[in-house]
Amino acid sequence: MRFTVADQNNANDSQLFTNLGEALNTEDLNRAAAQLQASHPPAIANTLESFPWERRLQIWQLLAPQMKGAVLIELHEEVQDGLIAESTPDELIKSVAGLDIDELADLYERLPEKVRTVVLQTMDERRRQRFEAVRRYPDNTAGGLMDVDAIAVRGDATLDAVLRYLRRTRRQQGELPEHMDAVIVVDRASQYLGILSLSDLVSLEENRVVSEIMNTKINPIPAMTPAKKVARLFEDYDLLSAPVVDENGKLIGRITVDDVVDVIREEAEHTLMSKAGLEEESDMFAPIISSAKRRAIWLGVNLVNAFIAAWVIGQFENSIKQLVALAVLMPIVASMGGIAGTQTLTLVIRGIALDQVGPNNIGRVLRKELGVISINALLFALTAAAIAMIWYQNINLGLVFASALTINLLNGAMAGTIIPFALHKLGIDPALAGGVVLMATTDVLGFFTFLGLATFFLL
Amino acid sequence: MRFTVADQNNANDSQLFTNLGEALNTEDLNRAAAQLQASHPPAIANTLESFPWERRLQIWQLLAPQMKGAVLIELHEEVQDGLIAESTPDELIKSVAGLDIDELADLYERLPEKVRTVVLQTMDERRRQRFEAVRRYPDNTAGGLMDVDAIAVRGDATLDAVLRYLRRTRRQQGELPEHMDAVIVVDRASQYLGILSLSDLVSLEENRVVSEIMNTKINPIPAMTPAKKVARLFEDYDLLSAPVVDENGKLIGRITVDDVVDVIREEAEHTLMSKAGLEEESDMFAPIISSAKRRAIWLGVNLVNAFIAAWVIGQFENSIKQLVALAVLMPIVASMGGIAGTQTLTLVIRGIALDQVGPNNIGRVLRKELGVISINALLFALTAAAIAMIWYQNINLGLVFASALTINLLNGAMAGTIIPFALHKLGIDPALAGGVVLMATTDVLGFFTFLGLATFFLL
Repeated sequence: MRFTVADQNNANDSQLFTNLGEALNTEDLNRAAAQLQASHPPAIANTLESFPWERRLQIWQLLAPQMKGAVLIELHEEVQDGLIAESTPDELIKSVAGLDIDELADLYERLPEKVRTVVLQTMDERRRQRFEAVRRYPDNTAGGLMDVDAIAVRGDATLDAVLRYLRRTRRQQGELPEHMDAVIVVDRASQYLGILSLSDLVSLEENRVVSEIMNTKINPIPAMTPAKKVARLFEDYDLLSAPVVDENGKLIGRITVDDVVDVIREEAEHTLMSKAGLEEESDMFAPIISSAKRRAIWLGVNLVNAFIAAWVIGQFENSIKQLVALAVLMPIVASMGGIAGTQTLTLVIRGIALDQVGPNNIGRVLRKELGVISINALLFALTAAAIAMIWYQNINLGLVFASALTINLLNGAMAGTIIPFALHKLGIDPALAGGVVLMATTDVLGFFTFLGLATFFLL
Repeated sequence: MRFTVADQNNANDSQLFTNLGEALNTEDLNRAAAQLQASHPPAIANTLESFPWERRLQIWQLLAPQMKGAVLIELHEEVQDGLIAESTPDELIKSVAGLDIDELADLYERLPEKVRTVVLQTMDERRRQRFEAVRRYPDNTAGGLMDVDAIAVRGDATLDAVLRYLRRTRRQQGELPEHMDAVIVVDRASQYLGILSLSDLVSLEENRVVSEIMNTKINPIPAMTPAKKVARLFEDYDLLSAPVVDENGKLIGRITVDDVVDVIREEAEHTLMSKAGLEEESDMFAPIISSAKRRAIWLGVNLVNAFIAAWVIGQFENSIKQLVALAVLMPIVASMGGIAGTQTLTLVIRGIALDQVGPNNIGRVLRKELGVISINALLFALTAAAIAMIWYQNINLGLVFASALTINLLNGAMAGTIIPFALHKLGIDPALAGGVVLMATTDVLGFFTFLGLATFFLL
């Protein structure tokens, strides 16, 4: 389903939020419904997510059935699930009736069994076949992203014949596929041959033959290509659309750039949220219990880490009793190592994502990172030690503090390089787990180094 | 300049890296040059960034002049600067000669004065006018993103006339603008009227009149619209291109989705890097000194924070001397508050970016976050206190520990909600500064609460 940008500059999301909020507060449901009717699904979806649950349900009830489907696909999965759970099967069947094949495929698994059965039964044969074709491939592959409505022509046709074919198709079907910037050229056996851009079609002489004009340099994307890689191809080669082929080179669909934009945004959001251990949390007003449960995992991991660090400190209780300054200064050693490590970690995670860090140059990266941190260690270890010496009037304490800081800064750089690389090798997303593992390392080693050196040299 | 996707699946970036590395290691420069010639600018740019500086210069020297420009615009700014500094003015003039207007505009400010003068002088009048039009607007606005080569037609033309016009333009100029999915409809005074998609142009009858067919619901984007907002519009409304108008509604260019994809990717990368205080660091093999300098700022801020926290601990030296367990347990209180706060902070930063959090619902967000953390505080404070009680055989210590943990977890949730909101109000990017400010709060308050409560109740 396609919507246009009406009033995009005037009625922006936050105005819709304010107006809708006022209408609902004064229980003026007609006004609220009118507000919604004048707005577009992405704006409604965003506004809906800005409200807590009781308001969301009110808004949901006010939406026309057809609009419900269009809003639903714009929502985060968590919010989708909530609204689906609150809707009757009949409502849902009406809501998804107008969705495009690929939109429906995205939503399908989240619908109740009962609704899925009816939706499948009421599809005409052509729509069902295309639906099954999309669903054959996992979500995060080219096949899962593709539209199955590519228009294909033969290489021996003239441009004139192509134009006539397109006009006929339009007359018969009432519309052409969305976001069409090219037609795809295939042979008799549906084998992919090349791309004829609409821009060439409208600007070259009508008697030219397709096969002479078509762009054969654009490789088709195999259906099992990971979505991330598809996004990289679109970015690097500035594509608007690309053909998708099955394992035999047969054309089965096309990917348009708007789907790729969604992949890139989701990837970015995933990275942001993972870094706080929130990878599944996409709804700001999710039920408190379920939010608490998800976040508990991360807090739990951190508590285990923190107790291990505490145990390390505990091994030096005797030293701390003799020199309380150790207790005062030890968190500085741990936190400086943590920050230095996070900087390296972030750089390496980005490098891995861009294919710029691999076994071939990990050694060089490590050397560079150790070089950078050595310079900073010199600077900060000396500054910090000087402050500590003045504070406690104790030169030896300053020297131990400086050594521990230097060691933990180097440890941070080393762990920051190796941890994401090792996690990646183990098939774990470094953006997800890198931070915890790193912090555990810099805390434990930070406390151990400082208290250990102090015990050995100062007491 | 436009390149196609050749061999995208076979010769991927990491293979280019390996092959090129081997060729350079064996000093087989011919082989290396051949490798480069068979590759495409984005792959070359990515590979180049995977090598340290001495290799990069070798690769740079092996590139054909025209290729240099195309590779240059694909590189991170830091790497661009380095290679520009290593090139002679003559080389640079040749390198940028083939670039598109908007590519040149992006690079222009980074070129040496001497090169800029020559580049401007050697432009023909039409190119210079268009160049100046793009440069009139800041980089991060719609005007800075736009291409100035939009093809415009009048509303009273027939489709047949439009087709003839496009064929004539193609014959005369040899090519049409890149990524053209639509022509823009304007009146006599160049005022924007609507959009005629190529898809409609090729599929509707030739005697139809443009004004009856054109899509008038797509609002043009004012040139000063921020790039971020442009990206949101493209995402929400699945646009492939959009017209850009000046303050008088006159058509001045168009934005295509490939430029928007770059904006989204840069935004994502900015968020990732900022969270580690690396916002300017884009080159993995930047010179060690300059990397060290940039990261020093963040380490310095952290050192100040850490010393403030240490000072707080120092105020309780006497308590620690009497009960060393305090020194052992206090980092747990600080780190749990920090993690809980980071979770809330991340959620709120995302909410602000999506316009889902504002003065109207910040109160609700805070209430929800406090609810979530209350549940987790109950769980973790009791667990942690139980462990501490068993460890130290001291019930009162456990109670104080549990209270301090609870208070600091609530503090984390509160600070995580309020800090990004306050920073945003002050015009500071919360993704950049939120983490430091939060950690300072949770550290200082964590130590103060725990040691303070212990001093008051235990000693």
